[in-house]
Amino acid sequence: MKNKKSQYEIFREKVKIILYGTNTILGRMFDLVLLGLILLSVLLIMLDTVQGISSKYHYQLLICEWVITVFFTIEYILRIISIQKPVKYIFSFYGIIDLLAVLPMYLSIFLPGASILSIVRALRFLRLFKILHIPQINHQSLQLKEAIEASKEKILVFIYFVLISTVIIGTIMYLVEGRESGFTSIPMGIYWTIVTLTTVGYGDISPQTPLGQFIAAFVMILGYGIIAVPTGIVTAEFAKSSLKNSTVSGKKTCRKCQSQVHFDNAKYCYECGTELPNN
Amino acid sequence: MKNKKSQYEIFREKVKIILYGTNTILGRMFDLVLLGLILLSVLLIMLDTVQGISSKYHYQLLICEWVITVFFTIEYILRIISIQKPVKYIFSFYGIIDLLAVLPMYLSIFLPGASILSIVRALRFLRLFKILHIPQINHQSLQLKEAIEASKEKILVFIYFVLISTVIIGTIMYLVEGRESGFTSIPMGIYWTIVTLTTVGYGDISPQTPLGQFIAAFVMILGYGIIAVPTGIVTAEFAKSSLKNSTVSGKKTCRKCQSQVHFDNAKYCYECGTELPNN
Amino acid sequence: MKNKKSQYEIFREKVKIILYGTNTILGRMFDLVLLGLILLSVLLIMLDTVQGISSKYHYQLLICEWVITVFFTIEYILRIISIQKPVKYIFSFYGIIDLLAVLPMYLSIFLPGASILSIVRALRFLRLFKILHIPQINHQSLQLKEAIEASKEKILVFIYFVLISTVIIGTIMYLVEGRESGFTSIPMGIYWTIVTLTTVGYGDISPQTPLGQFIAAFVMILGYGIIAVPTGIVTAEFAKSSLKNSTVSGKKTCRKCQSQVHFDNAKYCYECGTELPNN
Amino acid sequence: MKNKKSQYEIFREKVKIILYGTNTILGRMFDLVLLGLILLSVLLIMLDTVQGISSKYHYQLLICEWVITVFFTIEYILRIISIQKPVKYIFSFYGIIDLLAVLPMYLSIFLPGASILSIVRALRFLRLFKILHIPQINHQSLQLKEAIEASKEKILVFIYFVLISTVIIGTIMYLVEGRESGFTSIPMGIYWTIVTLTTVGYGDISPQTPLGQFIAAFVMILGYGIIAVPTGIVTAEFAKSSLKNSTVSGKKTCRKCQSQVHFDNAKYCYECGTELPNN
Repeated sequence: MKNKKSQYEIFREKVKIILYGTNTILGRMFDLVLLGLILLSVLLIMLDTVQGISSKYHYQLLICEWVITVFFTIEYILRIISIQKPVKYIFSFYGIIDLLAVLPMYLSIFLPGASILSIVRALRFLRLFKILHIPQINHQSLQLKEAIEASKEKILVFIYFVLISTVIIGTIMYLVEGRESGFTSIPMGIYWTIVTLTTVGYGDISPQTPLGQFIAAFVMILGYGIIAVPTGIVTAEFAKSSLKNSTVSGKKTCRKCQSQVHFDNAKYCYECGTELPNN
Repeated sequence: MKNKKSQYEIFREKVKIILYGTNTILGRMFDLVLLGLILLSVLLIMLDTVQGISSKYHYQLLICEWVITVFFTIEYILRIISIQKPVKYIFSFYGIIDLLAVLPMYLSIFLPGASILSIVRALRFLRLFKILHIPQINHQSLQLKEAIEASKEKILVFIYFVLISTVIIGTIMYLVEGRESGFTSIPMGIYWTIVTLTTVGYGDISPQTPLGQFIAAFVMILGYGIIAVPTGIVTAEFAKSSLKNSTVSGKKTCRKCQSQVHFDNAKYCYECGTELPNN
Repeated sequence: MKNKKSQYEIFREKVKIILYGTNTILGRMFDLVLLGLILLSVLLIMLDTVQGISSKYHYQLLICEWVITVFFTIEYILRIISIQKPVKYIFSFYGIIDLLAVLPMYLSIFLPGASILSIVRALRFLRLFKILHIPQINHQSLQLKEAIEASKEKILVFIYFVLISTVIIGTIMYLVEGRESGFTSIPMGIYWTIVTLTTVGYGDISPQTPLGQFIAAFVMILGYGIIAVPTGIVTAEFAKSSLKNSTVSGKKTCRKCQSQVHFDNAKYCYECGTELPNN
Repeated sequence: MKNKKSQYEIFREKVKIILYGTNTILGRMFDLVLLGLILLSVLLIMLDTVQGISSKYHYQLLICEWVITVFFTIEYILRIISIQKPVKYIFSFYGIIDLLAVLPMYLSIFLPGASILSIVRALRFLRLFKILHIPQINHQSLQLKEAIEASKEKILVFIYFVLISTVIIGTIMYLVEGRESGFTSIPMGIYWTIVTLTTVGYGDISPQTPLGQFIAAFVMILGYGIIAVPTGIVTAEFAKSSLKNSTVSGKKTCRKCQSQVHFDNAKYCYECGTELPNN
């Protein structure tokens, strides 16, 4: 009995190394196969919505989808079984994504059309960074995250002001242009304002009266200045973190006064004059 | 008599705490209700312009608008009564907004259609920052304001040059393309130039002749470089203020030589070597 | 005779003060009137191309244009007469603009339609900076000019690369999409590529085939990264000049070693330790 | 025999100086003629696709193309003959381009229509930088390359995230809008998302339902923030390299302590106080 349990233990250990590990050849190969299957699966779901393809190959595409879904299901179960703390995995970001990636297909048995939700599998691509384990890319990714994180608040405050402005501008345009030019309601005016301020400019709605075009030109020039603000915010954060990383990486600590912000090439503490340790 | 006056005093004091205060539970709850009502009111005004909704529920929407307007009116009167210096409030930015938020509905009794101007209530959302009192957000808001303020002049000078250019380019396009392509007049040509330079690009007017398209391509590449300028201006200001705030906030002054630009974590004056005071 | 000559001298002196000076009340008033007339003139030329207005008021507009033209002509002659070195003025930037501002109207006597070229008067607005003499704005204007000047070369090199790319991409799109989708020739394909890379996106020509749309998506994402480059160039220049201006304005020179790049608040020369002079 | 070989040697030497050299008058003239022929050739290929011109002058254009092709072929052969290490040239970037520039015309004898691929000649323009030998432009070009190189990784990580988002957003829009609004499939939805996120905004497909427009507005505001990220990345790199190049170019090394990061105008080592060598 004890022997059998041990065999199960060995099996679990092996599965864990293949599923979670990235150092063995098998683990690495599994990761590549997984990424390939995710890509294939996402492409199949996409193609199934293209009318020309769907009408011809719907049946074949469906079979492929089911095969991949069963594979993902087995993988999901094995991931739960093989790990020490399965609950932690199940409620982790990746655990939830892994579950959501298989659910829609089973749901589609009762609810035809739900299979399209399998597109959420695209989020499994995020696992790439876990798989790659390239410190440089992880570092870049972290720096990106940091800069975006740091600028998030300022950008939210900024968008709050922009949204209030769009309500006012949208109403003015609705009053000036009226229903004939496509400004059928205030929400439509706000939609147009956002389309214009962000410089997307579809052209499905565009001002027709001279006054409307004058105001539109004003909004565009305003948008000109406005688009500079989030860019400015993010860039400043990048520059700061980039500067910090390049000249003051915080790797040096004074043995005497414990100060940490030294230039990477500094030899003496700027606070107490003690010699700094070499990296 | 004195007792009654005192009761009125107590009432005023209570109202003031609820309306202006943000520390008591009642004051906080009132602020939340107020924000909710502003949001509701703005949504109602918007929906009333959507034809499908307006034709069915116009009456109900109108009643809601009036209820909210009466609430805002009472709030406005109470704000005037309860405060020490009512005149200062009335002519303050928020005071004028609060008045403009209720006026249009009363005006609509005589002038049907004026009720739409109530959309100006959207500006009451700006009060959010007063309400929240989150120092971090107020700090962000201030930093945004500072950077925009500092770059305002440069951007105005820049827009002045851009506007002169649009007149010249707009005239050239009017001459080259002519009325057939939609360039019906010089102002229309200028409108097109602004639409193109800002990269909005509606496509309602677009050059049709080879020469016109060649000039347009040139204008776009020009716009490419031009859009970089306001971004550069704002970003530089952000970087400056961001850098200043993070490492040299100017909070330290040397007791001996009165120098002020020290790193926030500096302990000794870089000018005379005197120990700096701790924050 | 000598007396008369002297009177002419006095007249010239007076005219010079009014035309070129900005310190006397008359000189300042003349500048304001001039700017007003330029604005009026440009607006009149614009309005004359708007069909509804031109058909009704063409005659009145024409008279106004002629009055302003005569005024500008007299001003031009007086500017030449009153100045010490008339040749230098005539061949200066402003001198040429002033001449070009009046020529088209006289040309229109022989060549009807040439009057529209009077729009070149818009360039006379540039004189505003000479008139205003606000050191702060002149400083901003200079800083703008410096940063654009400094980034010009890099941007030209960059545009050279972009133009080569547009030729290749434009040809590929012409081959892929063909004449049916509006890609009637390689120059048209290049035009589309520029419209897309600069994110203007008129939509007058847009890919219709799946492969064309795939390539277009790729070009857009490329344009995403590409638009960042000129912005990055200009911003870096701004940041540099802004940083330089704020902390190292070059106003301090060491009396002993003549070094000039000191922090504005530096007290001792970083090169030889000599005390720096106070501003 | 030896004499003849020597003559051939002299011929090779002469050809090499003309083709590869830029210091002699002949070499410089050849480079100019070459650039002119490349420009002419590219223009001819373009014009041959314009229907009006092609139908009239196709024969003349073809002859010109053949003359230029023969010239390029002779040049290519001479380049191989005259250089010391022909294999290195043949497989170099410029060598491959030079070959690809002539191949399509010879291919077009068997495969009519292949001649259009001669457009690849546009890439020969890149030789300009080799020809010009202006150190300043080469320096700028290098700085550009460095900054783009340094930001490449971060931008790729960023685009990876953006692409995953476009799959999700594209699917949502396909489900919300449906085939009637032009969202005929998920790939079409992704195409629309890329068109919108990059603020190109053709308007060939645009949301028609209120919910779709609401989501679109959200995507645009997202794109607002998102477009700031690559700009931020590139700008930070530029600022870093620009700052590095302008004040701390690393050209000075302390003779005593071997420290390298000195201000370009520093005279004494900031680490050990030793006098720095003059450049």
